[in-house]
Amino acid sequence: MNILVINCGSSSLKYQLIDMNEEKVLAKGLSERIGIEGSRIKHTTTGKKEIIIEKPMSDHKEVLEIVLSTLVDSEHGAIKSMDEINAVGHRVVHGGEKFANSVKIDDEVMKALNECIDLAPLHNPPNIMGIEACKELMPDTPMVGVFDTAFHQTMPKDNYIYPLPYELYEKYGIRKYGFHGTSHKYVSLKAAEILERDIKDLNIITCHLGNGASICAVEKGRSVDTSMGFTPLEGLAMGTRTGNIDPAIIPFLVDKENLSMEEVNNLLNKKSGVLGISGVSSDFRDIEEEAEKGNERAKLALDVFVNRVKKYIGAYTTLMGGVDAIVFTAGIGENSAEIREMVCNGLESLGIKLDEEKNNVRGKEALVSQDDSKVKVLVIPTNEELMIAKDTEELA
Amino acid sequence: MNILVINCGSSSLKYQLIDMNEEKVLAKGLSERIGIEGSRIKHTTTGKKEIIIEKPMSDHKEVLEIVLSTLVDSEHGAIKSMDEINAVGHRVVHGGEKFANSVKIDDEVMKALNECIDLAPLHNPPNIMGIEACKELMPDTPMVGVFDTAFHQTMPKDNYIYPLPYELYEKYGIRKYGFHGTSHKYVSLKAAEILERDIKDLNIITCHLGNGASICAVEKGRSVDTSMGFTPLEGLAMGTRTGNIDPAIIPFLVDKENLSMEEVNNLLNKKSGVLGISGVSSDFRDIEEEAEKGNERAKLALDVFVNRVKKYIGAYTTLMGGVDAIVFTAGIGENSAEIREMVCNGLESLGIKLDEEKNNVRGKEALVSQDDSKVKVLVIPTNEELMIAKDTEELA
Repeated sequence: MNILVINCGSSSLKYQLIDMNEEKVLAKGLSERIGIEGSRIKHTTTGKKEIIIEKPMSDHKEVLEIVLSTLVDSEHGAIKSMDEINAVGHRVVHGGEKFANSVKIDDEVMKALNECIDLAPLHNPPNIMGIEACKELMPDTPMVGVFDTAFHQTMPKDNYIYPLPYELYEKYGIRKYGFHGTSHKYVSLKAAEILERDIKDLNIITCHLGNGASICAVEKGRSVDTSMGFTPLEGLAMGTRTGNIDPAIIPFLVDKENLSMEEVNNLLNKKSGVLGISGVSSDFRDIEEEAEKGNERAKLALDVFVNRVKKYIGAYTTLMGGVDAIVFTAGIGENSAEIREMVCNGLESLGIKLDEEKNNVRGKEALVSQDDSKVKVLVIPTNEELMIAKDTEELA
Repeated sequence: MNILVINCGSSSLKYQLIDMNEEKVLAKGLSERIGIEGSRIKHTTTGKKEIIIEKPMSDHKEVLEIVLSTLVDSEHGAIKSMDEINAVGHRVVHGGEKFANSVKIDDEVMKALNECIDLAPLHNPPNIMGIEACKELMPDTPMVGVFDTAFHQTMPKDNYIYPLPYELYEKYGIRKYGFHGTSHKYVSLKAAEILERDIKDLNIITCHLGNGASICAVEKGRSVDTSMGFTPLEGLAMGTRTGNIDPAIIPFLVDKENLSMEEVNNLLNKKSGVLGISGVSSDFRDIEEEAEKGNERAKLALDVFVNRVKKYIGAYTTLMGGVDAIVFTAGIGENSAEIREMVCNGLESLGIKLDEEKNNVRGKEALVSQDDSKVKVLVIPTNEELMIAKDTEELA
């Protein structure tokens, strides 16, 4: 069975065609600058040379037409005909409280997706556009929606209700939803597999540390708490996002700098995080480099970032009454041995002993704790596309 | 040596006259509704009957004149003449970064206090009014300022810098300050005394749980982190304050409900917390009562409150690499055996074993953990006035 996985941003479209029998990527690609000057598609069929298609593409449907014809192209393609695409899995950012699981898309679901737009006005509309374009081009192929929020719908109410007037939850759905769910689910399942344990016997803390970053407490396979909240702004310090701050800072700043709400959102989401502290970059590689050269603010940015990760690990360990494994994933988690070391340093009281030698690994699965470490530490490259494809296979 | 301790709010004034030789309160009182209709003073000299003085009082100076004359009054007073007041200690909410310790007040200090007004526009002005009134009425008596923020000035930078543009720290002093410092300091010192240990050998987590609530990580006697931040809004869920929320909720709400910044501050500070969740009351006694009757939202409010306390205890234990003692203080911490039990329940993995019997105590010092509990749990009534008086004695 072949599954096409689609992930649409406002001006981008990522895709992977996956052969589920062997869990093998047949082809993948990325389209950028959709609807603006310079739009293009980078496409790679496994075993063949990457090609770049540059031409004006005004919307996601136009991109998809080109992608589909490239997939079946006799020279650059991966399959002979569209019939070999058995189902399409769509990443959807926000499923609100309506979707606690992936779902086969029908008219009811489309209606519900549209009702979630209010909660993710920047992310859900392009996701919906992608689904609609696919439905037009492949009307008989089953479509599945896989939500970033779904995995966290198992959180108990005392972890997702904010100490705000309860009416705001009832009226607008203001609560903690959490994101990166597909990633947290994938790496926690993978960790159980690597440790050869039943996930139902494990408490795992998954650290998805990328430019966006979140941590999840996975108790017996279920998300019981996570650091992102109503939006992906809450929690850890990130590349350009603040994470938690004193909420009173916002009215203070609006008053002092006379900011509009758009400017507030921009400040908190785009100009803060390690970029804001360091003044150097939102990219952790640049910051690590500057810190090594002695840049004090770059060092401070790393320390603030690491400090928050540690505190979440401590909080979630306590919440679950103990932890069996810590998993690092995503850009920083998979690739930065230094940050993993900084995080684990000082966590001996939790029973965590990192093995410096084993930790010297980039972008591949590895058990990086010492043999006698009570808590196992793992590096697991995330694979949201595969997780989406698995859910799609199951439902289609 | 007798110390007069003064704590001014915008329309209130609390005072205690303390004999430091025996650490004994000679007299105390509270003036309310200053400058508005119905202003009055409740005064009690130890060993005598409480008296209530009702008459118009237009400002703090007028109140202080009456307080001082009452203190030396032959019938209701505690001392013979003003000469028996050797020094005055003033509680000041915000010392910014200027004051890491209590300080003897001179012209320089007054200037610095005025410069801190921007950081605490509601709290510092009445504190300053109180000092000025005292200086006029007792020009030759030494005055000392004791700051709510001072104890937390030992926090390392990676715990107090927010992931915001660094310029906002430089320009406006936006950083974590922390509050309730006098209380956290007092109860941590007291805990060391009760445990007959040198505070320099102890890691203590102090939980000041009142209508305002904060937690502090006290490592070897020094505050290294605390839950309140730039203002007293951050951190735990409180009586009417949100504590941490996703900051993106604010622009979302402003947009939906068309709120002014004043309304935002009012919503987050006065209508949220356990009041907001429960819809019942901001008073934990009312909420506990309702929860017992089966009110689901009252139960939820307690669970959210307790949940956050647990997570902070876990985070701070991890941050300090272990903890020796947990201290409960302030209204709820001292009086609610139920909340203490809820907090400690499930913390066995940290080495905490509460003794249910011993925990059945209200408002007095007690060691409430089991004898073999690795982490000691204590109830210690806070005494900010005594702490202020001690600092004042030392400096005057």
